[in-house]
Amino acid sequence: MVESIEFIVEPLGMRISAPRETTILNALSRFGIGLPSICGGLGICGKCVVTILEGFENLNPTTEPERRHLSQKAIREGRRLACQARLLGGVRIMISPEELGSKPRLQVEGLETKVELDPAVSEILVKASPPTIADVRSDYRRLLDAIPKGDASGNPKPILEGLRLLPSRVRRYGWMVRLVLWKKERVLDILPPRSRRRLLGIAIDIGTTKLAAYLLDLKGGRTVAVASAINPQVAFGEDVITRISYAKDSKGLIRLQKAVIRGINDLIDECCLKANATFRDIYEIVFVGNTAMHHICLGLTPKTLGFAPYVPVVQEPLDLPSKALRLKANPSANVHVLPVIAGFVGPDAVADILATGLHEAQDPCMIFDIGTNTEVILGSKDGMICCSCASGPAFEGAGIKFGMRAAEGAIESVEIEPRTLKVDYKVIGNGKPRGLCGSGVIDAIAGLLRAGVIDSTGRMGIEEGFPGLRRNDSGQREFLIAPAKETAIGVDIALTQGDVREIQLAKAAVLTGAEILLKEASLDASEVKKVFLAGAFGAHVRPESALAIGMFPPFEIARIQSVGNAAGTGAKLALLSMKLREKAKEVADKCQYIELHTHPSFKEVYFRALSFPA
Amino acid sequence: MVESIEFIVEPLGMRISAPRETTILNALSRFGIGLPSICGGLGICGKCVVTILEGFENLNPTTEPERRHLSQKAIREGRRLACQARLLGGVRIMISPEELGSKPRLQVEGLETKVELDPAVSEILVKASPPTIADVRSDYRRLLDAIPKGDASGNPKPILEGLRLLPSRVRRYGWMVRLVLWKKERVLDILPPRSRRRLLGIAIDIGTTKLAAYLLDLKGGRTVAVASAINPQVAFGEDVITRISYAKDSKGLIRLQKAVIRGINDLIDECCLKANATFRDIYEIVFVGNTAMHHICLGLTPKTLGFAPYVPVVQEPLDLPSKALRLKANPSANVHVLPVIAGFVGPDAVADILATGLHEAQDPCMIFDIGTNTEVILGSKDGMICCSCASGPAFEGAGIKFGMRAAEGAIESVEIEPRTLKVDYKVIGNGKPRGLCGSGVIDAIAGLLRAGVIDSTGRMGIEEGFPGLRRNDSGQREFLIAPAKETAIGVDIALTQGDVREIQLAKAAVLTGAEILLKEASLDASEVKKVFLAGAFGAHVRPESALAIGMFPPFEIARIQSVGNAAGTGAKLALLSMKLREKAKEVADKCQYIELHTHPSFKEVYFRALSFPA
Repeated sequence: MVESIEFIVEPLGMRISAPRETTILNALSRFGIGLPSICGGLGICGKCVVTILEGFENLNPTTEPERRHLSQKAIREGRRLACQARLLGGVRIMISPEELGSKPRLQVEGLETKVELDPAVSEILVKASPPTIADVRSDYRRLLDAIPKGDASGNPKPILEGLRLLPSRVRRYGWMVRLVLWKKERVLDILPPRSRRRLLGIAIDIGTTKLAAYLLDLKGGRTVAVASAINPQVAFGEDVITRISYAKDSKGLIRLQKAVIRGINDLIDECCLKANATFRDIYEIVFVGNTAMHHICLGLTPKTLGFAPYVPVVQEPLDLPSKALRLKANPSANVHVLPVIAGFVGPDAVADILATGLHEAQDPCMIFDIGTNTEVILGSKDGMICCSCASGPAFEGAGIKFGMRAAEGAIESVEIEPRTLKVDYKVIGNGKPRGLCGSGVIDAIAGLLRAGVIDSTGRMGIEEGFPGLRRNDSGQREFLIAPAKETAIGVDIALTQGDVREIQLAKAAVLTGAEILLKEASLDASEVKKVFLAGAFGAHVRPESALAIGMFPPFEIARIQSVGNAAGTGAKLALLSMKLREKAKEVADKCQYIELHTHPSFKEVYFRALSFPA
Repeated sequence: MVESIEFIVEPLGMRISAPRETTILNALSRFGIGLPSICGGLGICGKCVVTILEGFENLNPTTEPERRHLSQKAIREGRRLACQARLLGGVRIMISPEELGSKPRLQVEGLETKVELDPAVSEILVKASPPTIADVRSDYRRLLDAIPKGDASGNPKPILEGLRLLPSRVRRYGWMVRLVLWKKERVLDILPPRSRRRLLGIAIDIGTTKLAAYLLDLKGGRTVAVASAINPQVAFGEDVITRISYAKDSKGLIRLQKAVIRGINDLIDECCLKANATFRDIYEIVFVGNTAMHHICLGLTPKTLGFAPYVPVVQEPLDLPSKALRLKANPSANVHVLPVIAGFVGPDAVADILATGLHEAQDPCMIFDIGTNTEVILGSKDGMICCSCASGPAFEGAGIKFGMRAAEGAIESVEIEPRTLKVDYKVIGNGKPRGLCGSGVIDAIAGLLRAGVIDSTGRMGIEEGFPGLRRNDSGQREFLIAPAKETAIGVDIALTQGDVREIQLAKAAVLTGAEILLKEASLDASEVKKVFLAGAFGAHVRPESALAIGMFPPFEIARIQSVGNAAGTGAKLALLSMKLREKAKEVADKCQYIELHTHPSFKEVYFRALSFPA
């Protein structure tokens, strides 16, 4: 029997297995992923380029056709032709999202929270009087003196670039100009009165896996374009810990910083194109992300986030010139960075709080921002506590045998008829399934728990009694979700005993965090008036399934609400409202961080949390 | 008879004449200026390089030896070998100051005013506690929290560069670091506790002709080094008006800006060398200069200073990152630019006021900052008025037949015995004289007025009655100051009727300004309690001579005081004291500018001012 090699396809996060010596091109096509290949795998067209992220040594040496089509630099950077590279061991490869036919689905929608429009950037049309022999005030002073009272605070400070344009501009436009101000205290730009320049701002959510950008009209508050993409840092490692480790030396840090800045600039371009705007229209950028992403994006070492006590370099909100980060925006644009709460509770959690209004809630509410790290926040206007749970990547499909991210071809929901064990499922994009994403796995486990196929310890019952339940080639128990004839990958898609164990570990981490916060606040789950699920997984998981597997304390189901990309929404709000931006600082100062691993109840709570509800 | 060609030698501002077809090398050597020349003018050594600033077309075409020694670029930039270039018409040439044997004397000394030390830049030694599992504040927050109360205002803002170094620095030095703060509100640097880094600031006076730099220890207030040089912009034109015209298009502006920044950076290097410091020790720069120099140095167009009503682009004091001007200082250094009063009353005048304390004087005082433009300020703590007088370059030796700047070889004082007309003079450097500088010319005219050789209309009396008085080759009356045998230039040095007229025009401009200010303030000259003469000319002119020629209203001689480079002193004070810096803004806002040319009394006062006192 031929040895089977398992390999991972990014950015899908899909695990694929293929016989040893199979070319990557053939292995991918067996799973419905067709790379562009004109010559049909003969090494002639050079189109089927892939990037090897890990395990370069587990492939045959580069061939003559590869040396012909790829530069030495490309080869050093891990590029191979998929038709030439044969699998001899485990690898992780990256294919460009365009080649997947469709981009992976990224959560960009969030709550639409109403907010009083009060952005940092504003503009005034100023009509100054021309100089005379009796009035020799400077050009700039003339503008200041002509600003209606209340529209600027005292003397807004000029910027050198603006002053350089000033004399010709005022004289050309009859002393009438548009002043763009930041916080009414600094002049960002001096524009002709009928300039087509728009006042835009962009909110950016920097996730470990994905980036989302929202281009907003700062005068009306409307979102004029949205774009999202995989974080290009994925090429350097899947999870935060790998990135932190990669960024330990300054060379790695700079590489990661450049990658994410490039990704953000691409999104800015895309948003501008969609909104028919130019990057010069962007006068402010707000960004959020977890603390590690925050540090890397600013070029700060995330090293100390890698070991206890996980101390960040800086937690204050920052205002920086966009030039300092080489972001594509107006040269005088400001970058506002929301504050950090702790090493693993970053500006994204602050944005979650702003978006859900937790800090103003009358009664205790809770936020779960579910990902590789799950941030849990409990509180109300009277106070807030938070923690970070190492939930791992299982909810995103990693570590699950047929797991994949919530992209086209993923089974996103599963219903199992409790008596007959008949399976019904829904696939993203409505095509043939390629694998299971997190919400699908949770549904399947919840269904099997209800049917009694899985007991409260997580053990799958004996196979005889249950249709679909069986042992696979490696002797592991598994439950068939989609038979080979229905799938895009030509093999059965099943949920294994191992998958159940992965989910148990992940859900235990989340539950432990929630339970400890409730304990700290001396609250019972029933006293939590609202539960907000944030993030892509949170938007798609069915609350009844999540409750069924005991991922959360026993909340009332009606109180659970999905809020989508709340971090993105919070960033948008901070872009539109100075009051909320001030509030963000207060929130970060006030929200108390609880370190789970050193909490006296941690082990006890965690042990209980590993079980499924009886 | 061979035609005589007159040419100008910079940076001396010396006018030299030589027969047509003379080589520049020979012409210079006749006036005691020996360029390095090993081959003795044969075009072999290539050492006698000069730069032709104006009149390149008035020389013979470049010769074969020049094409051998000079690059094409050098030739395009106006370089010639002095031994090969023959004078066919008027030229202006530049020789490097080093080749003059000694640098021209520049006024760098000023008043030593005592001031309470209160600089913008300060430092604190901070000892923070290391993080523990129970205390996970960020590195930066730890430092802030450890600052003793009163040593910083609230939360000083971090700079990105500092944050990037922070984690390794605090851990390496046991959480003890030196924080360098700006205005106690921004962190400029985070240093090891025993770093040798010094806290220095540099005050720079940007004159049209010369630059002066004062390196100060911001902790003790001591001046640790002083340097001065000719403003490299001199190569682009002698006076402010020529520079303004040159900077009319952006290419010219950038060229002038680069030239002055290069000059300043050279002074910074020189000061650092003298003080055994590095440019990274410099955390703040204050600069002053006239409004045109201020604009050009900031890269702002001085175009509108070139025509009525002479409006500046900006008059507010500015704080800019040193990087924005490419000044050689610590990367986080701040540049503070003192405010402008008007188009021709710049930050240098504000500095003059700070240095003399005019704004706090109980009784009316007056400042004359004498140069090509002479700023006159009249006032006390109760109010200030000022004006600018187009005195022209005569006080600096230009337009005077044997005129030159106050450099080595200049006759700086002249005494004429009223009865015998015997002349006694003093030469800068005590060598043989090469020409007359401004103070020498004023002395000579004052002496001749006293002796009755010049009457109140400025006419030189008939020659018969007076020894030394005669007609020169061009038929003009002149008075012999130094006979050829005593001079370094091999010809007689004399004061001509034309020279007297030049001085009459110049002194009339100054006197008119002073009279109009007194008129505006309804004051009599006798009510002015102190008269401060600022600038190089002011430091060397003898008050009795200045009064004798009627350069000033009839002040009491005892009340006239020379204050040297008051602008430089004022810049130093603004570097050492935040209070004075605040005061400077008030002063600039309060000091009222009087435009002379449109003043109703201008013509009448000016006409009277042209005469010498009877």
